[in-house]
Amino acid sequence: MEIRIITVGKIKQKAWQLAAADFVRRIERYTRVREITVKDAQWDSFKNEDLVRTAEAEEISRKISIDQFIIALDMNGEQIASEELAEFLQARMLHGQNKLTFIIGGPFGLAPAILEQADFVLSLSKMTFLHEMSKVILLEQIYRAFTIIKGEKYHK
Amino acid sequence: MEIRIITVGKIKQKAWQLAAADFVRRIERYTRVREITVKDAQWDSFKNEDLVRTAEAEEISRKISIDQFIIALDMNGEQIASEELAEFLQARMLHGQNKLTFIIGGPFGLAPAILEQADFVLSLSKMTFLHEMSKVILLEQIYRAFTIIKGEKYHK
Repeated sequence: MEIRIITVGKIKQKAWQLAAADFVRRIERYTRVREITVKDAQWDSFKNEDLVRTAEAEEISRKISIDQFIIALDMNGEQIASEELAEFLQARMLHGQNKLTFIIGGPFGLAPAILEQADFVLSLSKMTFLHEMSKVILLEQIYRAFTIIKGEKYHK
Repeated sequence: MEIRIITVGKIKQKAWQLAAADFVRRIERYTRVREITVKDAQWDSFKNEDLVRTAEAEEISRKISIDQFIIALDMNGEQIASEELAEFLQARMLHGQNKLTFIIGGPFGLAPAILEQADFVLSLSKMTFLHEMSKVILLEQIYRAFTIIKGEKYHK
């Protein structure tokens, strides 16, 4: 299995870089992880949230292909418990869908075109999270899911 | 206003310490923050989740008083949007409730006694988060709430 995480814009803060790297290392005990960062659109070039999202959607589209199972993150998506994410990943593996791609938008979220293209739209919370933080939370949930699948102990 | 954050057990990982410290610094532009860490109960001393939670609840109880407005974090609590948290904090301030205490449990969560004592039980997500991560997420939401209250721009 290969898990791809597409994010928009680089993580600038050291704390989030460290936390993300730590979870990537841990997930790699179970599966390959590829982190893909696409260029964020500059607010000053567009001055419109829709246009920013559309520009970023173009960048994202170049990184996804038809053979991937796409999970887009959006506040208005479906919330699932950690155990359900584990079942979900396991079901994908059983169906031979071994290319999973998670997409996290930039500060203004993902364009509708990306959400429509996604096989599943996942919400982490009703709250709006800093998008750098969303990546770390997602990585932690993927790691947690694998520990659940493998029946391994993991400190909450 | 004074915001207290009670957590169980120290944050061990550097990334989370850095991220928490950064948000505390930012929130302090708006209000005082007091971080209170109570001792976590050792699993090996109890070997039972209820007993661990009860031991930790005793430690927590010593740190709370009747004049505080208590918000306990629990996965099964109520989810609110970031804007609602802002309204909630603002309403507390308008009611002169200027001592707000957030309580985050340890790996096994909070004892029922603490949840019953709370004025509000808040859920960050349907997912189970690492408890160190919950503190950072909560701090980020409190910071975000203040930027919403003050009408300040804050990068998502």
